[in-house]
Amino acid sequence: MVDYINSNIHTYIEELKDFLRIPSISTSEQYKNDMLRGADFVAGKLKDAGLKNVKVIKTPKHPLVYADWLNAPGKPTVLIYGHYDVQPVDPISLWDSLPFEPVIKNGKIYARGATDDKGQVYMHIKSVEAYLKTTGKLPLNVKFIIEGEEEVGSDSLENFINTNTKTLRSDAILISDTALYGPGIPTITYGLRGLAYLELQVTGPNRDLHSGTFGGTIANPINVLAEIISKLMNKNGHINIPGFYDDVVKVTKKEKENFKSLGFSEKKFAKEIGVKKLKGEKGYTTLERSWTRPTLDCNGINGGFTEEGAKTVLPSKAMAKISMRLVPNQDPNKIAKLFTKYIKNITPPTVSLKIKNLHGGYPFLTPLDDKAMVAGANAMTKAFGKKTVFMREGGSIPIVTVFTKKIKAPSVLMGLGLNTENLHSPNEHFDLNHFHLGILSSAYFLQEYAK
Amino acid sequence: MVDYINSNIHTYIEELKDFLRIPSISTSEQYKNDMLRGADFVAGKLKDAGLKNVKVIKTPKHPLVYADWLNAPGKPTVLIYGHYDVQPVDPISLWDSLPFEPVIKNGKIYARGATDDKGQVYMHIKSVEAYLKTTGKLPLNVKFIIEGEEEVGSDSLENFINTNTKTLRSDAILISDTALYGPGIPTITYGLRGLAYLELQVTGPNRDLHSGTFGGTIANPINVLAEIISKLMNKNGHINIPGFYDDVVKVTKKEKENFKSLGFSEKKFAKEIGVKKLKGEKGYTTLERSWTRPTLDCNGINGGFTEEGAKTVLPSKAMAKISMRLVPNQDPNKIAKLFTKYIKNITPPTVSLKIKNLHGGYPFLTPLDDKAMVAGANAMTKAFGKKTVFMREGGSIPIVTVFTKKIKAPSVLMGLGLNTENLHSPNEHFDLNHFHLGILSSAYFLQEYAK
Repeated sequence: MVDYINSNIHTYIEELKDFLRIPSISTSEQYKNDMLRGADFVAGKLKDAGLKNVKVIKTPKHPLVYADWLNAPGKPTVLIYGHYDVQPVDPISLWDSLPFEPVIKNGKIYARGATDDKGQVYMHIKSVEAYLKTTGKLPLNVKFIIEGEEEVGSDSLENFINTNTKTLRSDAILISDTALYGPGIPTITYGLRGLAYLELQVTGPNRDLHSGTFGGTIANPINVLAEIISKLMNKNGHINIPGFYDDVVKVTKKEKENFKSLGFSEKKFAKEIGVKKLKGEKGYTTLERSWTRPTLDCNGINGGFTEEGAKTVLPSKAMAKISMRLVPNQDPNKIAKLFTKYIKNITPPTVSLKIKNLHGGYPFLTPLDDKAMVAGANAMTKAFGKKTVFMREGGSIPIVTVFTKKIKAPSVLMGLGLNTENLHSPNEHFDLNHFHLGILSSAYFLQEYAK
Repeated sequence: MVDYINSNIHTYIEELKDFLRIPSISTSEQYKNDMLRGADFVAGKLKDAGLKNVKVIKTPKHPLVYADWLNAPGKPTVLIYGHYDVQPVDPISLWDSLPFEPVIKNGKIYARGATDDKGQVYMHIKSVEAYLKTTGKLPLNVKFIIEGEEEVGSDSLENFINTNTKTLRSDAILISDTALYGPGIPTITYGLRGLAYLELQVTGPNRDLHSGTFGGTIANPINVLAEIISKLMNKNGHINIPGFYDDVVKVTKKEKENFKSLGFSEKKFAKEIGVKKLKGEKGYTTLERSWTRPTLDCNGINGGFTEEGAKTVLPSKAMAKISMRLVPNQDPNKIAKLFTKYIKNITPPTVSLKIKNLHGGYPFLTPLDDKAMVAGANAMTKAFGKKTVFMREGGSIPIVTVFTKKIKAPSVLMGLGLNTENLHSPNEHFDLNHFHLGILSSAYFLQEYAK
């Protein structure tokens, strides 16, 4: 089976290119048909791999793809999850090659979705295929559920999990949508941050005004919005929202030691992303800030005249998108409420305010000694020929906590990406060596967990 | 002559429509040809009016139009100034009719440039034409200089004034690019605010990053920019830049009384622009804030993801356009330097900063007892059948101060617009009754000033 994978890797890469050519952007209505094409592609490949009951399931937004192979009675069942939707591509001008025309350079494949998450979804389809093609069977039972709304909140999958819990019932959930600690280092992620993502709109006058005639007589919505944002954090990087930290579980001494042993270099990290000086919550290291502490970021802001030149306008409206990363045991709904209450409190009566709650997700943590976690670590150690490390991650996969709650099974986050692979940015890419090792890790996991 | 104007007013309006159909937007390279068409239109109409030496003068940016009639030896010379360039039209979706397809509704003509400044320029061309067509001569000497860069800083005209001072030499300058105090109230403006307009760009990481993975570890350029903006003014609406108020001339008691006598209603003003509560510098009335006090406004802001949806990006850059309205005797260059110094001081070392000085203009004030001012007031009183009032204005016409300095003649600001006519906003319009009264006021001014 390993030989089979090794000798077919170039075919797999060509197939992955076809997958990456589909602009399956879930955030915009414009790509609705491409989302259907994305789902059909996944379904077709699952069928080709030898899976049964392959279904494209319609939802109010973007379809889900289900498949299974359940011919190993008495053996455990693994649910493999991933997503075929991708992030928007703006700013398009910063891409070196077109986002939906995959290009291979220096052993990396460049395209939107390469690492997040098409490349990683495809590893599992190929590992199962290799098993079935070489042995005619799998060592345990497998279910696939691949969604198209991960980048927009996973509403349809969440609804499907709640109404079809039995269909998805399994003993462990295997997910590849996270990153390796570093190139070539086998890694299992055991914690993820949650998310609360809101949008504020501040309205001043009923239309854009001339800033000469009206400047100085009314509150300017951009200036007001800037002031609101400036009041969200204090100079120590601490979030000012009352009650925000109430449910935060402190990082343990054992975890802190574990993080230290990874030999993380703050200097190298700063250099790689091009900042002169790091900045974060006082009293924590960079890894602790990213993995174990809640944060607040403005993800977008817009108002007034933003083109070239000098238009003297006093704008009617200004908008900001603000998200908070959450850690166990923060609740995204509770945080969204506290945020809304605080914003209303600090907004002056000179403007009107609208708040939209766009998106939320719970934080997540799996015990390190869980049987599936151990199988995952062993599988990667075998594939990479190196000891697997354990880390937490700053990002969110909100659906993971829904799985955990409803399916009541541990999630193993066996991510093969790298944080430097520009996920969510121009020039997203995926290391093809990791793609190859990921297919092997997935195959070994089925073996290990079947034991 | 008055009868001639009255009987031809509808023809003038049709001609004005042709003028308004030309999209002469000076801020963008895209409209370069339309700017040429605008200049040619003005030149053609000046020629038709009977003026001599009509010239379209090439400049590095947009052409100037010059014309004169100098056959009144021993009589004073009036220089008439205006501009044929207009503001951009965004947001286009908020216009009820297309910005360059003029429409008349309820006695108002709707189009970009209707009130600022094409409609007002056209009044003077028609008053001179009426004089020449009915009497064969003018009561004094007249020069026209109409520019195409008023909305982008008047660089070419400033250069022309400096190098061709003699060509433009005159005893008074007549300008219609301001507003009446209210509908049907003859008004002369004797003071204008200056302007300093800059753009800030804050850069954090070298690319857009995933806000989950990187959030909390580095400074977010939008959050930093918001903090910078929040530090520009204190809660009393006072600008925090050290030295900013050093050269501000205080408003006199006489002026304060004069403003009070205008019967300005803050309530009505707030209602008209749709704000629940006015806001400005503590200790001043709204008219004082708008006419006599310097102010600071954010005219535009942009950064990160601003489309529909929830993209979890930690952006690389954020940009803001910030302008300050200045009053006598503030110097825009000095203010730009103080602003830049202060911004550099308050920008944290976690980001890099770029500041561009986009545009500047000096504030302006003409003595109320000047001979040309008196002629202007008498002319409007005659045309309107009502006593002319004197006001200051919050906006800037930077070129006015250049005229004042180089031509050494008083400027009479005989504006026929209204501040409610959406100049610089969607649905700009101009009251056609004021257009008519403006042609009469212009003709009477030539009579009055010739005395």
